[in-house]
Amino acid sequence: MIPNWLKQRAYLTPNKIALSTQNQQWTFKEMEREALKYARQLKAAGFTFGDRIGLIGSSNVEMVFIIHGCMLLGAEMVMLNNRLTNEEISWQIEDAQVKAVLYADSFIEKLKETTVQRISFTELSQGDEAEFDVERNWSPDQTITIMYTSGTTGFPKGVRQTAENHTSSALSSVLNLGLDENDCWLCTMPLFHISGFSILVRSVLYGMEVRLYEKFEVEAVTREIVEGTISRMSVVSVMLSQIIAELEKNHQVAHSNFKTMLAGGGSVPVDYLQRAIARKLPILQTYGMTETSSQTATLSASDALRKIGSAGKPLFFNEIKIKDAEHPNEHGEIYIKGPHVTPGYIGRFQANSPLENGWLPTGDIGYLDEEGYLYIVDRRTDLIISGGENIYPAEIENILAGHPKIREVGVCGKDHTKWGQTPVAFIVLASPVSEEELFAFCTERLAKYKVPTEFVFVDALPRNASNKLLRRELKQWLLSR
Amino acid sequence: MIPNWLKQRAYLTPNKIALSTQNQQWTFKEMEREALKYARQLKAAGFTFGDRIGLIGSSNVEMVFIIHGCMLLGAEMVMLNNRLTNEEISWQIEDAQVKAVLYADSFIEKLKETTVQRISFTELSQGDEAEFDVERNWSPDQTITIMYTSGTTGFPKGVRQTAENHTSSALSSVLNLGLDENDCWLCTMPLFHISGFSILVRSVLYGMEVRLYEKFEVEAVTREIVEGTISRMSVVSVMLSQIIAELEKNHQVAHSNFKTMLAGGGSVPVDYLQRAIARKLPILQTYGMTETSSQTATLSASDALRKIGSAGKPLFFNEIKIKDAEHPNEHGEIYIKGPHVTPGYIGRFQANSPLENGWLPTGDIGYLDEEGYLYIVDRRTDLIISGGENIYPAEIENILAGHPKIREVGVCGKDHTKWGQTPVAFIVLASPVSEEELFAFCTERLAKYKVPTEFVFVDALPRNASNKLLRRELKQWLLSR
Repeated sequence: MIPNWLKQRAYLTPNKIALSTQNQQWTFKEMEREALKYARQLKAAGFTFGDRIGLIGSSNVEMVFIIHGCMLLGAEMVMLNNRLTNEEISWQIEDAQVKAVLYADSFIEKLKETTVQRISFTELSQGDEAEFDVERNWSPDQTITIMYTSGTTGFPKGVRQTAENHTSSALSSVLNLGLDENDCWLCTMPLFHISGFSILVRSVLYGMEVRLYEKFEVEAVTREIVEGTISRMSVVSVMLSQIIAELEKNHQVAHSNFKTMLAGGGSVPVDYLQRAIARKLPILQTYGMTETSSQTATLSASDALRKIGSAGKPLFFNEIKIKDAEHPNEHGEIYIKGPHVTPGYIGRFQANSPLENGWLPTGDIGYLDEEGYLYIVDRRTDLIISGGENIYPAEIENILAGHPKIREVGVCGKDHTKWGQTPVAFIVLASPVSEEELFAFCTERLAKYKVPTEFVFVDALPRNASNKLLRRELKQWLLSR
Repeated sequence: MIPNWLKQRAYLTPNKIALSTQNQQWTFKEMEREALKYARQLKAAGFTFGDRIGLIGSSNVEMVFIIHGCMLLGAEMVMLNNRLTNEEISWQIEDAQVKAVLYADSFIEKLKETTVQRISFTELSQGDEAEFDVERNWSPDQTITIMYTSGTTGFPKGVRQTAENHTSSALSSVLNLGLDENDCWLCTMPLFHISGFSILVRSVLYGMEVRLYEKFEVEAVTREIVEGTISRMSVVSVMLSQIIAELEKNHQVAHSNFKTMLAGGGSVPVDYLQRAIARKLPILQTYGMTETSSQTATLSASDALRKIGSAGKPLFFNEIKIKDAEHPNEHGEIYIKGPHVTPGYIGRFQANSPLENGWLPTGDIGYLDEEGYLYIVDRRTDLIISGGENIYPAEIENILAGHPKIREVGVCGKDHTKWGQTPVAFIVLASPVSEEELFAFCTERLAKYKVPTEFVFVDALPRNASNKLLRRELKQWLLSR
């Protein structure tokens, strides 16, 4: 059994700061009170333990309280990415068969196509309350969150993240990063992503303050790092580069209170690492995914330059192996095992277990060196990582293939100074069409970050003997242009 | 599954310091090498995964390596208290049905009465080695250690402490105490006790250094506290009082590196707390027992004076309730639940589950106040705690009742400035016998700390209507003398 996180935490350290913004703060007791109000309003509105509820909104204080309200009630939360199109969101809502979607008022437009019950945060907060007994403990396999991630098929799959997945992830992390009673973790990652959500989990398990930024504000964030008002932070490369530039511009260094800059979503360029060291920013590169409820491996700051390009070693309760590799440095598919690995999907992929004999095949190619450090050589299914968001080429290809004037399409990532990568589409036309038209077509159907930044018209796509698209060839084409 | 602690730790942080004495130190890699040698020698000597092995010796480096060797092999260790008499030890060895006892050479005399296979540490270390595959993972319910504890019956019961018990205890503790990469925990508690053994567990889980003292040396230990060469330490009151006195004598205070003085084995007198604060010693009082693989509740240093006499709140994964209590401050038996609670006993008590509906009845009487802080009102079965060692009156009574000249006997604890308490025996004679003769009789059969410091001859013992001995009356008699 796992204690209901917030209930236990509010009992143990009621007066510790749980959450703060630049202007306001809440103790765990106060956060529990806010969350319990929402939980009782959900109860009065007919929801109960085990119900599945969609959530869409900004990553702000209101959202944090509603998330905790859902957890106190014991609802399964489908964390909807607020950057998706209406169509993409509808697809997920339908696949997850949620009982209702709770939405921040400004997101009403995102749910236009949805027929399921919709309740705005304002409606909810004005509703009646019904008393109920909050469950003291959770079963380890209770689903806390469901996050959608696309894969080889291009169809998003709803990944179950259980109480045990999240808890063991936070525990593994604390054994690696340590914990100080004055720790404060700055969160400017989306709460619908595991990168942001996992910060909320650590907060209630550790009794740790979260400083919440709805949006990434480089000046304010850098000031916190310099003044030592925060001690940990999660970033993707694009944010890291801005913070480093800001420190350089002001000739500043990080405060000694600042202990961890956890950098996910692709490896950090060496140049950044060296400049970060000069600014006393301890960068810890990490390898994680939705299916592993955050970090699987993390490279310590002290190894950053000695092991350039490595994602580090697994966390204590995790295991990594390279399929069929018999010696160090042999390349192969990365397999992951541990209590943080999802037990499976919901919806149309429910029957497809993600595991092989208890191991999660990641689709990523990598190797372990002599000391057991993990290196990622090639991302799964030609995954494109843009500003920390995962983009699966197949998903974009599926959409474009639906255009009447397109015969064939192949998508790959192109390096981009700011975002790391952006998607580029190679197209074989059936009849003439303009780049503008295709851009508009995609914008209607795909989240903005997934819309190709270039459309390249070609006569044929590179395919192997069995006619499989060779996306790596597309990358070569880009480079040789 | 739980990773084999040392194997995983030596892989993750091979070059961190694992163990040190005042003169020497070993990294996790070096510790693994030493332990693996013992494991291979055990293998060559015919031992294998799941075998039960008794261990007796001092709490020194050799013992640490042998303990880790047994764990790498996967043996169940029966941790024999080296202060017990030969008779007591024989009883436990027989009850546990160990395959063999490993003993430090100087303890050969303790095993005179034992017929089971005996192997000295020296013999073992000179034996052949056999290669074998160290298990990568343990099942959560794998027994790691067995520690004997007496109870109401006076017969010692072998308590199983599983991989999950120890692991969850260490994890709960880190969420409460925090963790710094430079942490170093001073261990001067016996390794055959959960207070000492749990420090070794934290070390491999946290990647933390243990500074080992075979014996408590107040001057050296205090110097480490003052110089900040250690950051955490476990003590019982008698050690604490000496450390405080030493600091006072030298007009010294604890270094700011020193973060936790974990005080177990009975509550700390208020006078100590106030003097400790003046010496900047952060005292955390704790409530734990063999059946809970160390701490169940711990009082934070900041609450020490606000909640005098309290044992604090449960650790994150633990639960405490007062039987039948409906309101705060109601007294009743303390019940404990959590992943740190033993699944049961071995040997003759194997069939007696210690649990009631998943809860461990402690026999201790206490209450929870309005804020949920635990207070212990009366120790289980009139438990006597002397210098941190538990003494059960029934065990001494059983021995004395076997003396031909004694008709009836009752034992209770008497306050003692240095040891906290010592046992006193009230005796109804059948025929005359001297105090000296009884003292000799006990010394032969009981560990030294259990031998009564006084024998009081009386005409009758206080009993209730159903003839049950009223040990609390005996305490009144002591006070009114």
